Amino acid sequence: MTAKSFNPPVRVLMGPGPSDVHPRVLSAMARPTIGHLDPAFVGMMDELKDLIRYTFQTENQLTIPVSAPGSSGMEACFVNLVEPGDSVIVCRNGVFGMRMTENVERCGGMPILIDDDWGKPVDLNKVEEALKANPGVKALAFVHAETSTGVRSDAAALCALAQEHGALSIVDTVTSLGGLPVEVDKWGADAVYSGTQKCISCPPGLSPVTFNERAAEAVKARKTKVQSWFLDMSLVMSYWGDGDSGARSYHHTAPINALYGLHEALVMVQEEGIENAWARHAKNHDAFRAGLEAMGVGLLVDKEYRLPSLNTVLVPDGVDEAAVRTTLLQRYNLEIGAGLGALAGKVWRIGMMGTSSTPHHVTHCLSALEGMLSEFQADITTGVATGAAEAVLFGD
Amino acid sequence: MTAKSFNPPVRVLMGPGPSDVHPRVLSAMARPTIGHLDPAFVGMMDELKDLIRYTFQTENQLTIPVSAPGSSGMEACFVNLVEPGDSVIVCRNGVFGMRMTENVERCGGMPILIDDDWGKPVDLNKVEEALKANPGVKALAFVHAETSTGVRSDAAALCALAQEHGALSIVDTVTSLGGLPVEVDKWGADAVYSGTQKCISCPPGLSPVTFNERAAEAVKARKTKVQSWFLDMSLVMSYWGDGDSGARSYHHTAPINALYGLHEALVMVQEEGIENAWARHAKNHDAFRAGLEAMGVGLLVDKEYRLPSLNTVLVPDGVDEAAVRTTLLQRYNLEIGAGLGALAGKVWRIGMMGTSSTPHHVTHCLSALEGMLSEFQADITTGVATGAAEAVLFGD
Repeated sequence: MTAKSFNPPVRVLMGPGPSDVHPRVLSAMARPTIGHLDPAFVGMMDELKDLIRYTFQTENQLTIPVSAPGSSGMEACFVNLVEPGDSVIVCRNGVFGMRMTENVERCGGMPILIDDDWGKPVDLNKVEEALKANPGVKALAFVHAETSTGVRSDAAALCALAQEHGALSIVDTVTSLGGLPVEVDKWGADAVYSGTQKCISCPPGLSPVTFNERAAEAVKARKTKVQSWFLDMSLVMSYWGDGDSGARSYHHTAPINALYGLHEALVMVQEEGIENAWARHAKNHDAFRAGLEAMGVGLLVDKEYRLPSLNTVLVPDGVDEAAVRTTLLQRYNLEIGAGLGALAGKVWRIGMMGTSSTPHHVTHCLSALEGMLSEFQADITTGVATGAAEAVLFGD
Repeated sequence: MTAKSFNPPVRVLMGPGPSDVHPRVLSAMARPTIGHLDPAFVGMMDELKDLIRYTFQTENQLTIPVSAPGSSGMEACFVNLVEPGDSVIVCRNGVFGMRMTENVERCGGMPILIDDDWGKPVDLNKVEEALKANPGVKALAFVHAETSTGVRSDAAALCALAQEHGALSIVDTVTSLGGLPVEVDKWGADAVYSGTQKCISCPPGLSPVTFNERAAEAVKARKTKVQSWFLDMSLVMSYWGDGDSGARSYHHTAPINALYGLHEALVMVQEEGIENAWARHAKNHDAFRAGLEAMGVGLLVDKEYRLPSLNTVLVPDGVDEAAVRTTLLQRYNLEIGAGLGALAGKVWRIGMMGTSSTPHHVTHCLSALEGMLSEFQADITTGVATGAAEAVLFGD
């Protein structure tokens, strides 16, 4: 075997992530590698922590990017906060709630499951009942924006319920951070993690996490060592600087160039203004929805709970959903996502996240979909989708 | 706070890693991000596995890059192979042996420690005695190339001892892979991990690991679930393809652009030829050693056990080692490393790894060091170091 340099095709990324990465971020990652203890790098790290705080809308001191993808940010929250024997209420309304359950079990914890249908938000009443029925529960874990279903749950209300009952809240914001309001301090969320490859439009590989004082105290009060050396927050923080002493010591070697990319992506978030980024995602989603409706194509999720960053689009009757995806990729280099688990074959997951949330993405995807659905003889109205979207985008 | 784009200084990296990254690798990381399930990406993944096999000199099917830095590769080996109650012989002759001990403990295992002085290799006799005294021991864990001391231990002999006594071998090759012979199949090593930011000269953030059949069987025979969801090899392999079915399923989102970089770096290893890369590291090390000797500056490690990739240079009497490092960085943008743990203040760690192992690096570092040591009035011979190095590099 003789391998050659790999030159990827240029895709338009409208799946469930990664999203399109801006050239500024790509070029930032190609800047010269320097040492992970270099004074210049340490200065960048401090700025990066502030940028993550801004994006999470928090003042939490314990705020860092975990040096691995979003799944490890999830694991970091669970292994640091859950000890053997702890019970944790886990809300399952999609794939990522199921993954949380796995995490609790692997920590030796006891999950108490609250199931809601895929496509529905977490039911607040069921959560309240579970909290009442299980006094002393250690944590309530839920997904703010379910990437597998396109559903937003009420994070503020869920965090408030947890706090009321003395439980920590553990919140997945992988598909919301940067794309819709994630307000960690306002919510009173205790431990929150995210990924970089969704609405922040950085390549995958890092996981921003933030712990408030209550969560940090819970880590300090542990009776047992964190089961992961790599994800042990007390050790990780010794490298990222704990703010009190300012001293830093080597833990693991940080992924230098990936952090350059995240820094640049978050500088761009700050330049745009986080509220403007939220508004942009909302408007482009609304335009896309208008285009789909004009075509007569439905969405899985009720309007109230839809994510602006991820649309779960119902596959019209008689359409071979996999063939549509393959053809879109071949003809237009356009990637959209398949349904997962219970929704496999029934929906497409069409992301409009970060750099992939623009008027261009909206109309390009609508017209490509219209062409494909016509070929598959789906019962749709043609010639109206992009106009409907444009009315939202550029109308009064 | 308003952050601006971060433009790092251009350093010459001769610390314990990261090493200088070749422009080909930097620019590979800036190529367009595509989906982690994109057919084009999947093809690249297969090629990457083959390239890692080549670099490890193995045919092991279970060979992948873990999506996080070297420390997580270490953790992947331990959490997959060590179950609660297992005893593991851990050889400690530096920082990374100590970290292995932490890993065993956090898996609920019982470490049996074999200590050797920092600066000495693992003592084969002590290991053999420990294996005899502890029948049924699950594994023998050791560091091939200790980054904290610059020592090479006899991996072939240690793996043979483990096999003889029915124990699995777990081998750290973070500072050896690509820079000196790492021959996984010839050694009969069972589980081996490395990092990317040393002799492969990729930015940090990934950890190549390889498990042979014996190790894979041990994972399959586990009585308990792997404590880490993120590092559970049976799940990770479902994404990287297990070779039998060829089917792939989503696990976590791979760090796409970082993998472009590793692919390019390993294409360069293949172009050079792994044996040629080993020979280059050996020759540049030998030249550097000749220059130091000519100056009258010593090395910590006996010649037989020295790493070509990392020199632990004894700080001459009366020299402020930290001031030397700081000044080298300020004047020349030249990074060299400090001593760790027991060696703090006593040695510099000067790496010549991958792209940082060239005649230019050798003579640049020697002349810069000579200047600094003269300023600090160290008792050295001046005017001879680079000549001595050049004689090795360019003599007959």
